[in-house]
Amino acid sequence: MMDIKTYMNDVGQCARKASRAMAKADTSAKNKALTLIAAAIRRDADALRAANRKDLDAARANGLAEAMVDRLTLSDKAIATMAEGLEQIASLPDPIGEISNMKYRPTGIQVGQMRVPLGVIGIIYEARPNVTVDAAGLCIKSGNATILRGGSEAINCNQALAQLVKEGLSGAGLPSDAVQIVETTDRAAVGELITMPQYVDVIVPRGGKGLIERLMKESKVPMIKHLDGICHVYIDDKADIEKALKVSFNAKCHRYGTCNTMETLLVARSIAPQVLPKLAELYGTKDVELRADDEARAILSGYQHLTTATEEDWRTEYLAAILAVKIVADVGEAIEHINTYSSQHTDAIITEDYTRAMRFLREVDSASVMVNASTRFADGFEYGLGAEIGISNDKLHARGPVGLEGLTSLKYVVFGHGEVRE
Amino acid sequence: MMDIKTYMNDVGQCARKASRAMAKADTSAKNKALTLIAAAIRRDADALRAANRKDLDAARANGLAEAMVDRLTLSDKAIATMAEGLEQIASLPDPIGEISNMKYRPTGIQVGQMRVPLGVIGIIYEARPNVTVDAAGLCIKSGNATILRGGSEAINCNQALAQLVKEGLSGAGLPSDAVQIVETTDRAAVGELITMPQYVDVIVPRGGKGLIERLMKESKVPMIKHLDGICHVYIDDKADIEKALKVSFNAKCHRYGTCNTMETLLVARSIAPQVLPKLAELYGTKDVELRADDEARAILSGYQHLTTATEEDWRTEYLAAILAVKIVADVGEAIEHINTYSSQHTDAIITEDYTRAMRFLREVDSASVMVNASTRFADGFEYGLGAEIGISNDKLHARGPVGLEGLTSLKYVVFGHGEVRE
Repeated sequence: MMDIKTYMNDVGQCARKASRAMAKADTSAKNKALTLIAAAIRRDADALRAANRKDLDAARANGLAEAMVDRLTLSDKAIATMAEGLEQIASLPDPIGEISNMKYRPTGIQVGQMRVPLGVIGIIYEARPNVTVDAAGLCIKSGNATILRGGSEAINCNQALAQLVKEGLSGAGLPSDAVQIVETTDRAAVGELITMPQYVDVIVPRGGKGLIERLMKESKVPMIKHLDGICHVYIDDKADIEKALKVSFNAKCHRYGTCNTMETLLVARSIAPQVLPKLAELYGTKDVELRADDEARAILSGYQHLTTATEEDWRTEYLAAILAVKIVADVGEAIEHINTYSSQHTDAIITEDYTRAMRFLREVDSASVMVNASTRFADGFEYGLGAEIGISNDKLHARGPVGLEGLTSLKYVVFGHGEVRE
Repeated sequence: MMDIKTYMNDVGQCARKASRAMAKADTSAKNKALTLIAAAIRRDADALRAANRKDLDAARANGLAEAMVDRLTLSDKAIATMAEGLEQIASLPDPIGEISNMKYRPTGIQVGQMRVPLGVIGIIYEARPNVTVDAAGLCIKSGNATILRGGSEAINCNQALAQLVKEGLSGAGLPSDAVQIVETTDRAAVGELITMPQYVDVIVPRGGKGLIERLMKESKVPMIKHLDGICHVYIDDKADIEKALKVSFNAKCHRYGTCNTMETLLVARSIAPQVLPKLAELYGTKDVELRADDEARAILSGYQHLTTATEEDWRTEYLAAILAVKIVADVGEAIEHINTYSSQHTDAIITEDYTRAMRFLREVDSASVMVNASTRFADGFEYGLGAEIGISNDKLHARGPVGLEGLTSLKYVVFGHGEVRE
């Protein structure tokens, strides 16, 4: 194989060229490609499983952790879900070419905006074959070309999937280079991918905080990314206790490993003696460790899994059956704490007080801010985006769950009749 | 003075703190600040002129070029325009807090988006005192804090203006640190400003290509920027000749030094013999040099200021009475040329053909794409944004002229009634 720099440069050039064709592709061609890929995946399920077995054998031989092997495994259900996911993307409205807000100006020109693709999307992800198909599908529908760099442990399965994607693209008359898989497992390829702004318009890293921090340091291409999810629920003293219990339990215990899981619970001082013992009963059923500040510990004394919170806990994403608990004076102190320690992912208030709810919504500087709902709802599907390429904690471009629209941009269009500037 | 790093760190901290207060400031307080600053500028016009004279004396003593001295000069008219500009910004609708698209989801939650400020905007600009006031006004209205770093030649005038801005902010009950001027002319301050992502959310550089390229290399903060404006007009063979002449003349000759001025004219082969001689007559009245390819030169032979275009000319922003001219086969070749050489700023087609107009709009990958209108219209005021902080050639976040909305972001808001994720 030629050297990595030359190889990635070629991949980039092909992607840029394919992106021009994808940008002008019509809706029916893009949808046809998606349904053809779905059909090919169902047709070749056996071959995909065989490729996946090669990856799994190599992974076990290399002593990969069992959790990683789990994520790498392509079950029958996973194959069916991939195909259905593509058909779902096909059924979404095409965002590209949409013209909005055309308004006449006093000069006679008419000005508005047209939604267009970003161009080339680089996606860097771990050894999860389903991401290959999801990401390819979203990029095709949004008229972008994409370069996919999956975890090296999934290389056989990813290459098999890439073949089916290319078959679908060609079958719909679209350039097969619109979706390219990086064919080398050499890590230098990632270094090239994130430093080719001439070919790549945006990088979407999907992986752990370590990976993303590393990429951030070196990338010359803008990223749509979130580092971590330190999410809060604040139980106000005007909260409906039933809602507070239900939401606080769900936000922590529905799933521990997700980025929209609550990691810190804030409770208003005057309602804490009422609400904390009841919550402890619920969390006790799941053996959740409560890392509480002094005031909360006094109320929770006797709880089986009670420990002491330190400053470090306010900054920690546990991704486990652990919850930091802190007593605050009021909604003002809750907002102050959240704006200091939150990762700006998702934060919720539980209250029946209108003014406090509105204040919390306005002043908490996070991608998703909620009243009386579980932080677990922060998700592209739950928000009705139909799909999700990732979540952004940044403020520029896209914020919160990112669907098809996040892979697009708006350009200005002007309809004139020979007007000139006086 | 303390060392630059410590100083800029303090400035950043103060800005971050002020940004929290600005984010929740109500519309009337922000408008009051803007009108108070306008009044103070009118009241202190004499003092501003005196501060400006100090800058001008120093600039002349340092041998500053006369064109730079011109831009540095604060005329009576410039002072009046600054004050009026602030009042105009006050009269614009407040973008902040606007909630849109609240929709019920099957789970019972209601999801939509709220427009919020970006936080802290760093603005780096040349020695133009009016930018100080315009930029401060836009940031105040959009609920952001700002750190302004103007050209060192304008330091006296900028400090005098900053005092009036702070007076207006305080008078409206807003934190005076919401607008800070970097008080040192040491260039190391810029290096600090663009590498404090913890305090600065976005940098808006306003200056020449050299400055921006330098900043791009070192910045750790996202930028809203454009490097250059290599704008095209394509005269299709289905063009209305009168419109073609009017627009092509205006796009080049209305002003030479602006980024939305046409730099390359593309003409369809079959209409070139008809349109180029007439255009030469018009450009001849302004002594515009025409750098033409071989085919165009054959038609233009005899034109007084005719020279030969090289590959380099397709990539050049002249900012002068020079125009590159190229013959193309059709709209397809025109689009191909533009997508290869354009700086993705603004490009226009002149045609009466509906299908070609629509194709050009869809396929030209530039921030502004126009049919039958002068590229000179690519401007925040002409587009009806009411104001302009700059123009973006990037695709992420903001594209084209950037007004108040470009200084904001959307966060998700969720209204619940105790819903949890099943």
